[in-house]
Amino acid sequence: MSKKIIITIARQYGSGGREIGEKVAKALGIPLYDRELIAAAAAKGNLNETVIKNSEESAANSLLYTLAMGSNVLGATMHFGYKMPLNDKLFILQSEVIKEYAAEGSCVVIGRCADYVLRDEPNILRLFIYGDLDHREARIHERHPELKSSQIIDVINKTDKRRSSYYNFYTGNKWGKYDNYDIAINASTLGIDGTAELIVECAKKKM
Amino acid sequence: MSKKIIITIARQYGSGGREIGEKVAKALGIPLYDRELIAAAAAKGNLNETVIKNSEESAANSLLYTLAMGSNVLGATMHFGYKMPLNDKLFILQSEVIKEYAAEGSCVVIGRCADYVLRDEPNILRLFIYGDLDHREARIHERHPELKSSQIIDVINKTDKRRSSYYNFYTGNKWGKYDNYDIAINASTLGIDGTAELIVECAKKKM
Repeated sequence: MSKKIIITIARQYGSGGREIGEKVAKALGIPLYDRELIAAAAAKGNLNETVIKNSEESAANSLLYTLAMGSNVLGATMHFGYKMPLNDKLFILQSEVIKEYAAEGSCVVIGRCADYVLRDEPNILRLFIYGDLDHREARIHERHPELKSSQIIDVINKTDKRRSSYYNFYTGNKWGKYDNYDIAINASTLGIDGTAELIVECAKKKM
Repeated sequence: MSKKIIITIARQYGSGGREIGEKVAKALGIPLYDRELIAAAAAKGNLNETVIKNSEESAANSLLYTLAMGSNVLGATMHFGYKMPLNDKLFILQSEVIKEYAAEGSCVVIGRCADYVLRDEPNILRLFIYGDLDHREARIHERHPELKSSQIIDVINKTDKRRSSYYNFYTGNKWGKYDNYDIAINASTLGIDGTAELIVECAKKKM
């Protein structure tokens, strides 16, 4: 396998998308980028990482800014002034970092609208990973046995709503809608390992 | 491979979904059902097949019938009277035939809301196959070189609209929305053969 492959993973909360991404990255011997993108973006913009931690994947809501920038926030790259909302600044910096990493070589990128940011990249495999609600609930229960079922469902709904709003705001597309992805796959069907193996097969075919 | 597998394929017009289904059925050595379902449904209901030909995958639009039946047309199975619209009668008969065929053994079923009809089947792999518009246009152009590009796009849009209306009407779900399927896959990404191979891999894993 000599060719480059960039794999982007959008995922429902609790679906196992991140874990699948880790297995795929390991199997292909390529790096995976997730939260470190925030740190890199913060460093790039001389922003305080602890301040921006809460901005992660939540869309800005500034009417004036949207009007000023038009529908495509990315078009404003690096031309923002001091008054741009922090979230938007972070999104632009993060997009720059994603493009730099993707230019360096094969990698897996989790979340952060990477499918949209890298839409002109020819060697891309854009994935959306979802799961049956009971499987997702069980996964989260393992990590947080202190939470009640109703609390878990609440966290699932709110996290997906946040991811969806973030994606829809910054891309103008609809999170989870098939035409933004090469494959949308229910991780409950084949399980975490089976899904990761299928994605590795798919990446090899694409390469 | 001893276990049973039922593969349902919903597909955008021109995406190659049927051809992929044929390759998958051949590779797994299992039957594929498509238009023959109509003939079988017609025979079952003593309906005239030529009369119902035009009813294929187009939803009825009877307010009275919908009100009478509630939201779940399938609930009315075999209890319809003489005044039921032909399309609805056909959908119910077709659903019965699909269930009978699926009960007999492994198979591939194209279209006809089979993912919904067989939703309680444990050994099911529900696929949605789509494609890039330029690829779909090129495929249809090969079959119909007499058509202009604008005419092809028109046929694509109308056929997908018809399939979508049919699915949404009879299932109450949304055609193409990821949670109705185990995998939604863009056939343009890996091509017809590559996509078929990936689905065969997936079916073997599921088995």
